[in-house]
Amino acid sequence: MRLLDERAVEDIAIGAAVLGTGGGGDPYIGKLMAIDAISEHGPIKLLSPDEVNDDDLVIPTAMMGAPTVIIEKIPRGDEALEAFRILERRFGKKAVATMSIEAGGINSTIPLAVAARLGVPVVDCDGMGRAFPEIQMVVPHLYGVKATPMIIVDEKGNLVMLDTIDNTWTERISRAATVVMGGSTVIALYTMTGKQIKEATVHGSITMAETIGRILRENKKNPIQAMLEYVKGYEIFKGKIVDVMRRTVAGFARGEARLEGIDEYSGHELLIRFQNENLVAIRDGEIVASVPDLITVLEAETGQPITTEGLRYGYRAVVVGIPCNPKWRTPKALEVVGPRYFGYDIDYIPIEERMRKR
Amino acid sequence: MRLLDERAVEDIAIGAAVLGTGGGGDPYIGKLMAIDAISEHGPIKLLSPDEVNDDDLVIPTAMMGAPTVIIEKIPRGDEALEAFRILERRFGKKAVATMSIEAGGINSTIPLAVAARLGVPVVDCDGMGRAFPEIQMVVPHLYGVKATPMIIVDEKGNLVMLDTIDNTWTERISRAATVVMGGSTVIALYTMTGKQIKEATVHGSITMAETIGRILRENKKNPIQAMLEYVKGYEIFKGKIVDVMRRTVAGFARGEARLEGIDEYSGHELLIRFQNENLVAIRDGEIVASVPDLITVLEAETGQPITTEGLRYGYRAVVVGIPCNPKWRTPKALEVVGPRYFGYDIDYIPIEERMRKR
Repeated sequence: MRLLDERAVEDIAIGAAVLGTGGGGDPYIGKLMAIDAISEHGPIKLLSPDEVNDDDLVIPTAMMGAPTVIIEKIPRGDEALEAFRILERRFGKKAVATMSIEAGGINSTIPLAVAARLGVPVVDCDGMGRAFPEIQMVVPHLYGVKATPMIIVDEKGNLVMLDTIDNTWTERISRAATVVMGGSTVIALYTMTGKQIKEATVHGSITMAETIGRILRENKKNPIQAMLEYVKGYEIFKGKIVDVMRRTVAGFARGEARLEGIDEYSGHELLIRFQNENLVAIRDGEIVASVPDLITVLEAETGQPITTEGLRYGYRAVVVGIPCNPKWRTPKALEVVGPRYFGYDIDYIPIEERMRKR
Repeated sequence: MRLLDERAVEDIAIGAAVLGTGGGGDPYIGKLMAIDAISEHGPIKLLSPDEVNDDDLVIPTAMMGAPTVIIEKIPRGDEALEAFRILERRFGKKAVATMSIEAGGINSTIPLAVAARLGVPVVDCDGMGRAFPEIQMVVPHLYGVKATPMIIVDEKGNLVMLDTIDNTWTERISRAATVVMGGSTVIALYTMTGKQIKEATVHGSITMAETIGRILRENKKNPIQAMLEYVKGYEIFKGKIVDVMRRTVAGFARGEARLEGIDEYSGHELLIRFQNENLVAIRDGEIVASVPDLITVLEAETGQPITTEGLRYGYRAVVVGIPCNPKWRTPKALEVVGPRYFGYDIDYIPIEERMRKR
C-alpha cells in the first residue's frame, strides 16, 4: 500500500492519456475531481492486487460514452459514488476498493476521485492496460467475469441497472441507454473478488501511468524518447496534422486524422483511424500498427498526449506504438479486440515484429 | 370479484382490439397464453378496484415495442412473471394483483396470463381506457404516479431496471433499450397502491372489453351497430383499404392507411395516420376524429377489429370513433396525448361535438 497525492494524480492523468491511445476521455475533469477530493479527504490509498483478500469485493467505476460528449457534459460528482453504493447493496457486502476498468483518460482518474470521497483504496490494476471502446473489451471478459450487475447513472438523476445474459448484450443495451441519456454516463460494473482481480486484470497500471506522467514531466529535453524506453515502445511517425474528420455516431467518436511527415518523415503520410481510441496507423497506405497495440499521438515538443477529441489541424505530433499487455495477444483475445473485430481484414502482427521487419 | 373463463378471455381479446384503436399488438398471442394458463391453473379472479385495499400493491404487466415486431417475436412465457416478482422484491411486499396498463390488444391479455400463472387476481381497470404508444401516456401519470421502478425483460433473459427522474425519461430510456433488445420486451411498471388504483386508473375496462367482444360475437346481423350503441360511438366511414404505408422506426410502427368509400361513402376518401395506434382520421382532407378519442377499423361484415399491423389492401372496413375516457379531456391530459403532442397542429374537439356538427 502506498499513498497517492496531488502530484501523483497529475502524473497519472498524463500517463493515462498516453495509455488511453487517444480515447477514454480527456483526464482533465477526472483529475480535477480527484485533486478536489484529495484536498478534502486526504491522499488516496493505492493497494497492489496482492493486498486484496481473495473473498473481498472490488467495484470498478468509470464513465461511458463518446469522449467528445464527456468533455462537454460534466458529471455532477456523486454519480459514481451512488453507482458504487448500489452495487454494494446488490451484493449485500461492502466493497474494499474501487479500480479502473480501463487505463485511459478520465477512466483512470474517476476511480481516484471515487476512492478519495468514499475513503476506500484504489487497486493498482485495470481491466485493459489501455483504453478500448466497448464494454466486453476487458481482460476480465476473457476470464469469464460478467459485467453485470451494471449500474448506469446520469447527471440528471436517472438510474439504469442491467442484468444480462452476456457482456455483448451489456454493451448493446448500455450503449443505447447512454446515447439517450445524453451521450455520456457514469457506470459501475465488473464487480470482482480479490481472487478475480489477481488473475483477470492488468496489474500495475496506475503505477505505470504515474511513471509515464513523471517521465514526461521530468524530461524537458527528450520526453518522448525517455517515455518510449520505459514502456518499450516505438516512434512510428512525426508529422503535422493536416486533416481531422470526426463524427459522434451511435455513441462513439469515430473518425480519422491525417499527418504529413516532417524531419526524417518528410514526404510520407500517416493516417490514424479511431473509434474513441486509435485503432490503426496507416503509413503511405500500409498498416504500421494496429489494435490491440497502443497507438498514441503526442505533441512533438512537450510530449503531452493528444486525445482524439483534441486532434487539431496544425499540431506537430509524434505518433508512438506501444506493445499491449500479452493477455490481449491470444487468439481468443484477438477475436474480441483484434483488427478484424473493428472491420480491418488483416491479421494482427505485434508491433515489435513490425518494427523488427523495418 | 368474479371469475374469467376461456370464453371471457376470448371476448376480452376481441374487445381489447377494439379499444386498442389499432395498436397494443394483436391480442392473439396473449389470449393463447391466458387460455393456456387457465386450462392449467383454473379461471382468473377479476377484482373491482373497490375490492383492493388502499395499502395493497398492484403491479401492472405489459409488452412494450412495435406491434409489427411483437407478432413476430413470441415471448417465452415467463418473462412477465419474472418482472412482476422482481418488483415485489424491490418493494419488499407481495403484490395482491396485476392489471393492464393499457386496454389494448396484447396488453389486455398479457396480465390475464400473468394472473392465471401467478394465482393472483387481475383488477378490472387499466391505465388508459384505450391504447397509447408511449409510457407516460397513462392516467396514473396525470395523477403523479411514477412509472419506475420499471423492469424490462426480453425472451433471451436480459433484464433492465430503470429508476428515473420522470416518466418522459422512462419512455426515452426504455424505448432505446427495447429497440436494441430486439424491438419488443416484456415490462412491469407503474406499481400502485389500492388507493392509487381507485383514483388514478380507468375503471371497468376489462368488463368493457369483454362486453364489446360478446356483443360482436353474439350479433351476427349488425355487430358494429350493436357495439357502437354500447360504447356510445360513431360510424365515421365505410370503405375499401386501397393503400397502406407502414414502417417500423425508432421502436414504433408508423404509417397511414387510405380507404375509398363504399355505399353511402362512395366518392369519398378516408386517411388514417398511426403511431402503433390510430391517431387521426382525415376525411376528404378534413380531420373527423383525433386522439385521445378512439379510432378503430373493423371488418365490415364480421365487425372484427383490425390492428394497424393487420391492415391489408382490399379489406372492406368500417371505421368507428369512440369517445375517450373523460380523464383524457382536461388541458393537462391533452398536453400528454392531444393531437399537438403527435405533431398535428389542431385543437382537440371531442368526437361527440364533431358528430353533432355534421
